[in-house]
Amino acid sequence: MPPTTLPAWQALLAHQREVAPLHLRDLFARDPQRFDRFSLEAAGLFLDYSKNLITAQTLPLLCRLAQEAGVTRKRDAMLAGERINFTENRAVLHTALRNRSARPVPVDGQDVMPEVRRVLAQMREFAEGVRSGALRGHTGKPYTDVVNIGIGGSDLGPQMVCEALEPYGDRLRAHFVSNVDGAHLARTLKRLDPQTVLFIVASKTFTTQETLANARSARAWLQERLGAESAVGRHFAAVSTNLQATAAFGIPPERVFAFWDWVGGRYSLWSAIGLPIALYIGMDRFEALLAGAHAMDEHFATAPPERNLPVILGLLGVWYIDFWGAGSHAVLPYDQGLLRFAPYLQQLDMESNGKRIDSAGSEAAQHTGPVVWGEPGTNGQHAFFQHLHQGTRWTPADFIVPARSHYPLGEHHAMLLANCLAQTQALMLGKTREQVRAELAAQGLDGDALARLAPHKEFPGNRPSNTIVLPQLTPAALGSLIALYEHKVFVQGAIWDVNSFDQWGVELGKQLAGRILDDLRAGTVSPAHDASTAGLLHALTRAGSAPGST
Amino acid sequence: MPPTTLPAWQALLAHQREVAPLHLRDLFARDPQRFDRFSLEAAGLFLDYSKNLITAQTLPLLCRLAQEAGVTRKRDAMLAGERINFTENRAVLHTALRNRSARPVPVDGQDVMPEVRRVLAQMREFAEGVRSGALRGHTGKPYTDVVNIGIGGSDLGPQMVCEALEPYGDRLRAHFVSNVDGAHLARTLKRLDPQTVLFIVASKTFTTQETLANARSARAWLQERLGAESAVGRHFAAVSTNLQATAAFGIPPERVFAFWDWVGGRYSLWSAIGLPIALYIGMDRFEALLAGAHAMDEHFATAPPERNLPVILGLLGVWYIDFWGAGSHAVLPYDQGLLRFAPYLQQLDMESNGKRIDSAGSEAAQHTGPVVWGEPGTNGQHAFFQHLHQGTRWTPADFIVPARSHYPLGEHHAMLLANCLAQTQALMLGKTREQVRAELAAQGLDGDALARLAPHKEFPGNRPSNTIVLPQLTPAALGSLIALYEHKVFVQGAIWDVNSFDQWGVELGKQLAGRILDDLRAGTVSPAHDASTAGLLHALTRAGSAPGST
Repeated sequence: MPPTTLPAWQALLAHQREVAPLHLRDLFARDPQRFDRFSLEAAGLFLDYSKNLITAQTLPLLCRLAQEAGVTRKRDAMLAGERINFTENRAVLHTALRNRSARPVPVDGQDVMPEVRRVLAQMREFAEGVRSGALRGHTGKPYTDVVNIGIGGSDLGPQMVCEALEPYGDRLRAHFVSNVDGAHLARTLKRLDPQTVLFIVASKTFTTQETLANARSARAWLQERLGAESAVGRHFAAVSTNLQATAAFGIPPERVFAFWDWVGGRYSLWSAIGLPIALYIGMDRFEALLAGAHAMDEHFATAPPERNLPVILGLLGVWYIDFWGAGSHAVLPYDQGLLRFAPYLQQLDMESNGKRIDSAGSEAAQHTGPVVWGEPGTNGQHAFFQHLHQGTRWTPADFIVPARSHYPLGEHHAMLLANCLAQTQALMLGKTREQVRAELAAQGLDGDALARLAPHKEFPGNRPSNTIVLPQLTPAALGSLIALYEHKVFVQGAIWDVNSFDQWGVELGKQLAGRILDDLRAGTVSPAHDASTAGLLHALTRAGSAPGST
Repeated sequence: MPPTTLPAWQALLAHQREVAPLHLRDLFARDPQRFDRFSLEAAGLFLDYSKNLITAQTLPLLCRLAQEAGVTRKRDAMLAGERINFTENRAVLHTALRNRSARPVPVDGQDVMPEVRRVLAQMREFAEGVRSGALRGHTGKPYTDVVNIGIGGSDLGPQMVCEALEPYGDRLRAHFVSNVDGAHLARTLKRLDPQTVLFIVASKTFTTQETLANARSARAWLQERLGAESAVGRHFAAVSTNLQATAAFGIPPERVFAFWDWVGGRYSLWSAIGLPIALYIGMDRFEALLAGAHAMDEHFATAPPERNLPVILGLLGVWYIDFWGAGSHAVLPYDQGLLRFAPYLQQLDMESNGKRIDSAGSEAAQHTGPVVWGEPGTNGQHAFFQHLHQGTRWTPADFIVPARSHYPLGEHHAMLLANCLAQTQALMLGKTREQVRAELAAQGLDGDALARLAPHKEFPGNRPSNTIVLPQLTPAALGSLIALYEHKVFVQGAIWDVNSFDQWGVELGKQLAGRILDDLRAGTVSPAHDASTAGLLHALTRAGSAPGST
């Protein structure tokens, strides 16, 4: 059902016109209960959503939309293992990967949990072997460095988590090579000793172009340095379902870790794709990450919509995207460890809901997923926050902040917290022309000089944000945070009635790349190309890309 | 003059309605000269802008807009040292920093070039001393690591450039600490030897909150390990105009590097703010970076608008933002070394043109600067490209690609190039329903199954992009590329008639943070706060942030 045809959609259109003239300043002034009404704690996370363009009527209306769109029913279908990925006819069960309860999770009547637990046990054994030094490299030395070779979902999740949980990285260094650009692998290998490196090749099919190119080049580098063919099996592991290809590559079966067709790439860090995490922080902490996500799953599965964190965040997003015209969404973690959280969310959100076709095969009549972007605070304040405060378009933003630091250092953390709170306050309150004039007058300005400067120092305010407080960036809190966003994205896809679990949009480029690569190999320009592609091939050749050998 | 009142603006509104029904596929099919018409080489960069939603009429109309908005006159005013930063009454002369000609650059009748050259000479002497080992640390060891402590413009530029020019980083390791989050400094210091580290504190006023907090903590760390107070002078340098504060900090005057009020933070990497670059790659290569930028300056200053790279890119941006409703702009470098190019551009563009007030003090009647975002390809293809291809909103995108790699490795670079070209081709061409149906039929699908899947595999195409080809990511090419974007941003600001050189939008947050920090220090919650700020302060305390000591 197209959401625009639902009664709640029409009611929300009317409601938006009522809310549009109101200013958050006044909404706060009018309602002393606003913060209590619009804040919530669950699964270890605290959400303040009081600084949104909403009144007491908004959330009930949005929840009606969720209800009419069947969000609860769709959620239950996902959790029950139904094949909700309808274009690929697959179940969607990343929640089973972190199911810490004793409940079975059936797919076509078969409980998947024994298989999940088997792979977790295999991961534990391997991770402990590597971390303890019981497992060693070809020359008998313990491993010091893990290099994950994967791309997209086989890269962004583990990379983001390892970066975030660096305080727990107690044994090995972790590296991530994803880009087919040779610089990525070459710059990483420079710093490594072949005797002590462990490569993990992460590709479900073991055919991903970039990953296999990097894996083959890494293997060549290793063999050149260690000599023996047999060294490969001691320095490579794989996360893949293609046992034939991994064996042909030289990886012994006990170092191959499986996952399943009901785990989408961008939802896979909870599976064996998380092996670099387990190696980096240890299996117990990896399981704490799973437990944090499971706590959020339980909350999502059971809390009523109006007290359900992912539902609320999802609905607020729909509110801005479809009723206020927001095209992008900023994620601003006040934690340097979350440096790669926005790139991770870009995949999660934009690959899931960057869709224009609904379940009936019709073109969506409304906008779907936003552009997601962001950098850690306080850095962003000195970069793009100008735009957030005084640009012509406003951007809804999530501020994420841990109450406690892993690195308490003087007043640093208090400053971080103060800045985070101050930014959401500034976005909300703004600064009126009258306030600006008074400030400038107090500084001794008057007349023309004051009148000329004042408009530039005015802040419209009324710009919405959420604040998510974590006690500390622990494995459990991070697991909960990631699951929160996974389910938020689910809720939005359910409302828009798109398939959040396929990604056909990546296929055309792959097809076309094959033909262009043939040209580059042969040093030719196929007459079938459009003039731009042909012209660029000529320009690259003129600029020195060596045909046939680049 | 508000641009919306210009005759060309009205003509463009009408023209957009003519172009809107056309598809790029057809425009290419119709005009065999399209690529030659819409591509251009200057200052070492090749631009293909043929895959834009333009006809032969569009660029002349856009150039008329530029002319009516006085872009050329404003450009000349900037280059001549006029005080075009009208809210701060300052000249804007980052071009003087890289002026490799013998021409003087006057500010109020005084040539600034002797001062520029003096600081460059000081940088050279210092950089060569450090790099050769002639200058050494407190215990007599040569320096091995440079840590830049700065934020915003004192961080993003040098960091991006050092990351990009890593193949030239031949002597020292370079680190960048910006975030006030103690984790940023602590995680960096873990890897360093106090005897061989050189800190550069970069802050024009030497009062930037984050930078001074990090600098003081770094100094404490150093003194704790090296004992003597006098060690500070051997392990710290500063880029600042506040000689009193740098002296009080313990930095000798010969290690303090000046810059000037006509250098904005986000335009400062060409000044002494670039010192970490000079240390990392050597002063000759730093000067090659300047020379590349200078070549682009010369092109910008002299080429006619319709053959002027920054003018064309700027106008195309305005075309999408104001006539097609684009809210964001993607920057997609196919080069892993340009990992931090998008965050750098975020500041350059969003802090410059994230403005809503024009030169007359009126609110802009049209949209100004976009949200800028992006990650390197091919990584992005496995993450957010789904959204670019099949989302409901399209995003104009710049693809940036070097013809040659610094790390030639098997077929890696050919694959990188093929993917880059294929993505712009896919965005432009799309895939029609008929093509999809034929492909699915060839795969053996038919009837309902085919009909159900086909819409999901369709690509609308007609999504615009630019492709910028560099011969190789050399210092000169990078300098030229950065200057291209600087001037693009200038052109847009000139058309929108905003001040691209102030940043009042960052002030309110700073003010408010001071008050909240007082609360955090005292463990109190001021009754003056709004309910959300008060509630968050309570939530942080409950979650364990230790009042008065965090």
